[in-house]
Amino acid sequence: MPATKVKKDEDFNEWYNEIVELADLCDKRYPIKGMNVWRPYGWTLMTNVDSLIRDEMHKTGHSEVMFPLLIPESLFKKEEEHIEGFGKEVFWVTHAGLTQLEERWLLRPTSETAMYPIFSLWIRSHTDLPLKMYQIVNTFRYETKQTRAFIRVREIHFFEAHTCHVDFQDAERQIQEDKEIADRLLQKLCLPYIFNKRPEWDKFAGAYYTISIDVLMPSGRTLQLGSIHQYKDNFAKPYEISYETQDGKRAYAHQTTYGMSERILGAIVGIHGDNKGLILPPAIAPLQVVIIPIIFKGKETAVLDACRTLHSRLQSAGIRSHVDDRETTPGNKYYDWELKGVPLRIEIGPRDLDKQALTLVRRDSGEKKTMPLSNAEDGVRAELDAVAAALYTKAEKLLNENMHRVCSVEEAKETQGIITMPWCGTKDCALEIENVLEGNTLGEPIESPRCTETCPVCGQKAEKWMRFARSY
Amino acid sequence: MPATKVKKDEDFNEWYNEIVELADLCDKRYPIKGMNVWRPYGWTLMTNVDSLIRDEMHKTGHSEVMFPLLIPESLFKKEEEHIEGFGKEVFWVTHAGLTQLEERWLLRPTSETAMYPIFSLWIRSHTDLPLKMYQIVNTFRYETKQTRAFIRVREIHFFEAHTCHVDFQDAERQIQEDKEIADRLLQKLCLPYIFNKRPEWDKFAGAYYTISIDVLMPSGRTLQLGSIHQYKDNFAKPYEISYETQDGKRAYAHQTTYGMSERILGAIVGIHGDNKGLILPPAIAPLQVVIIPIIFKGKETAVLDACRTLHSRLQSAGIRSHVDDRETTPGNKYYDWELKGVPLRIEIGPRDLDKQALTLVRRDSGEKKTMPLSNAEDGVRAELDAVAAALYTKAEKLLNENMHRVCSVEEAKETQGIITMPWCGTKDCALEIENVLEGNTLGEPIESPRCTETCPVCGQKAEKWMRFARSY
Repeated sequence: MPATKVKKDEDFNEWYNEIVELADLCDKRYPIKGMNVWRPYGWTLMTNVDSLIRDEMHKTGHSEVMFPLLIPESLFKKEEEHIEGFGKEVFWVTHAGLTQLEERWLLRPTSETAMYPIFSLWIRSHTDLPLKMYQIVNTFRYETKQTRAFIRVREIHFFEAHTCHVDFQDAERQIQEDKEIADRLLQKLCLPYIFNKRPEWDKFAGAYYTISIDVLMPSGRTLQLGSIHQYKDNFAKPYEISYETQDGKRAYAHQTTYGMSERILGAIVGIHGDNKGLILPPAIAPLQVVIIPIIFKGKETAVLDACRTLHSRLQSAGIRSHVDDRETTPGNKYYDWELKGVPLRIEIGPRDLDKQALTLVRRDSGEKKTMPLSNAEDGVRAELDAVAAALYTKAEKLLNENMHRVCSVEEAKETQGIITMPWCGTKDCALEIENVLEGNTLGEPIESPRCTETCPVCGQKAEKWMRFARSY
Repeated sequence: MPATKVKKDEDFNEWYNEIVELADLCDKRYPIKGMNVWRPYGWTLMTNVDSLIRDEMHKTGHSEVMFPLLIPESLFKKEEEHIEGFGKEVFWVTHAGLTQLEERWLLRPTSETAMYPIFSLWIRSHTDLPLKMYQIVNTFRYETKQTRAFIRVREIHFFEAHTCHVDFQDAERQIQEDKEIADRLLQKLCLPYIFNKRPEWDKFAGAYYTISIDVLMPSGRTLQLGSIHQYKDNFAKPYEISYETQDGKRAYAHQTTYGMSERILGAIVGIHGDNKGLILPPAIAPLQVVIIPIIFKGKETAVLDACRTLHSRLQSAGIRSHVDDRETTPGNKYYDWELKGVPLRIEIGPRDLDKQALTLVRRDSGEKKTMPLSNAEDGVRAELDAVAAALYTKAEKLLNENMHRVCSVEEAKETQGIITMPWCGTKDCALEIENVLEGNTLGEPIESPRCTETCPVCGQKAEKWMRFARSY
């Protein structure tokens, strides 16, 4: 029985809007548009993603900090491109109590302008570098477009890493590390992705270049989960982040940032879920296994005891498990836990007990098998791995089947998904393609062979490939 | 060698202001008054406190949520006393980008008015109760008084639990549970405390009654770490939080809240620290043990190997440890880790190795002992427990020695610390005592024998005891 009124393959966007509330991730009834309430289940999921990010940050020598939310207007305005890029989408605090503030403060849309004046105090010498800091906070952007839970909101749960380096090359090494972090993290979340070097006119305000991390949603639209920015010394100059070099001179630091948002959760919901509900990657599922006693009269105690014993064993083995002993039918329980996306369901009834076995059902495929109770830990762990692998493979298939290399505008018009085309390098030609596709310029593939075609718009030599897609 | 310029017992407040920055807890140079930067060491400490709180919430069946930061003015104004209490100390967002908002939004000073309209949607029936939610967020208050790191700031790291119950009695049971949580938590943080039932004129805006959790700082002033509020149905009525009772009628929920802030960290710094730096309770110390190799030429490898082996063993035993193998003198290393408050230092040199022993130094007492390497895990664990017990005992002595029961105004004038006096129950008499002491009315001791004295101000019969103190 489907949980949603709308089917995923009939109207993806409506299905998505429905499922995020049905599965208790968020409540959209808060009276400010684009500011939703995180319900316990959704918040646990989000903080499980945060924990994976913290693990990666810890392994790579980043330190967690917490900078103030509010930024004085004067600090914000030091980097010109930055204020131009963000000025129209920030919230302003103008009053405190009954008093008008002497200077307006804004709610951070991102924290460069809060952090960098302080970094300039922390960094004195080359021995202070590299400086690798991150924070996980909420950021604020005044979205005027239609909002959508986790995907386009005005209060955004956000991870931001900020690093300072002795030179451009060391900052480039950081970007390499960032890519490897994305790779490990998104593998765990079963999210295949592509890196795109954003075009000049669409890079982050103040950046030297921007690499976006994009996934493909089942609607055929791409969703940008995060980005990695090389700043060179663009911020270091106005914010005076300089240091004494080994030979006693002064030099500006080179900086990078790495940001990812709650859109990760949007991707997990959208890519993996089905008409019955969420399907969660085992790495972040609040519950990895739910155990359901199949009770017949007279056998209650034995079955319940077996379920509870198994639960303890799984918990001891580091597997997040739960016994659903509510007084309702097994069918109702299946429905609830399928909606919540628990990767594995275990059923134990009198017949299983007779055989010292358990019945295991995979949420992703519905596949059912029995296995001996004796080494359930290993069996469950193997099945969790199998679910993760299957989720990744399915999402990879979706991505691969919807990426197309095309060489003419005509062909592009008839192609869905992510289109890679030869590109001469001029903005006008890219915008023409955007027009035709009613889509966006995603960016250059960062690792692809040199193009030897001609630009399908102007016919000039095209040395680059450029990707286009409709995006969220 | 003391780390601070100012000695703790000569000028506590200045010592405190100095130590919070010296020990890398925060940076006070952010250009908005009362909004400090959490440095990595301070933020790790704070999040370790948060983890203890989360454990307690989890054990007592609370669920973690995350509500929006911004609250529309109209929602905020539904409970009259609440707006009166907070109206003058909130920050107002009035503009988004270039647009003036139709309605002003405020930054949460606390989240009653954000949560309760949503609770009214979540609660339909008695089966939805009790509802027990909490969040750990930053809150905002426009402090006009002098700010002080962790103690009086404008962006406040804050824990807030909100519960809804079928009736007053069930809410009272929640308050009992809250007291037990405070007890367990503050025991782990080595912070003896007192509960005080705040006087009518100083309870939380909108509450039926308020119990504060206060500690005594070495300056002789009390510091309120948190509070527990009984709301009755004071908020449920304006926010329409009602439910269907078991016999089909409608009733309003009764509510409680429980809040604690980053002041907990201020208390830990102020109460336990000394002129060498912090002294951290083992339960939250980012490092519980630092291992320092004492190296003589020719023996480097054996000593370093022994240190690293011990470190691995301690980590495996769940003890947070670190080997300081920097190329500097042991003296410099002692200085640094004493400043950071690491509870135990282990030294291993060639002579220790010959005896298969280690030298262990306690941060709190400076006490030095040797113990066999063979069962270092147990030895270290026992010493960590001993440090925790000693910190608690020392703080308890400070509290007990500075709590005085006095029965005349004359005597009160000459008494420092926390003064408990007979009280007739009128505000005027309490304010008179406040005047005389240049202090505050702390509140009634919640568990004390009935008073049979007379009020020292008006001479009337005094059935209650009331506590007074100078407070932060």
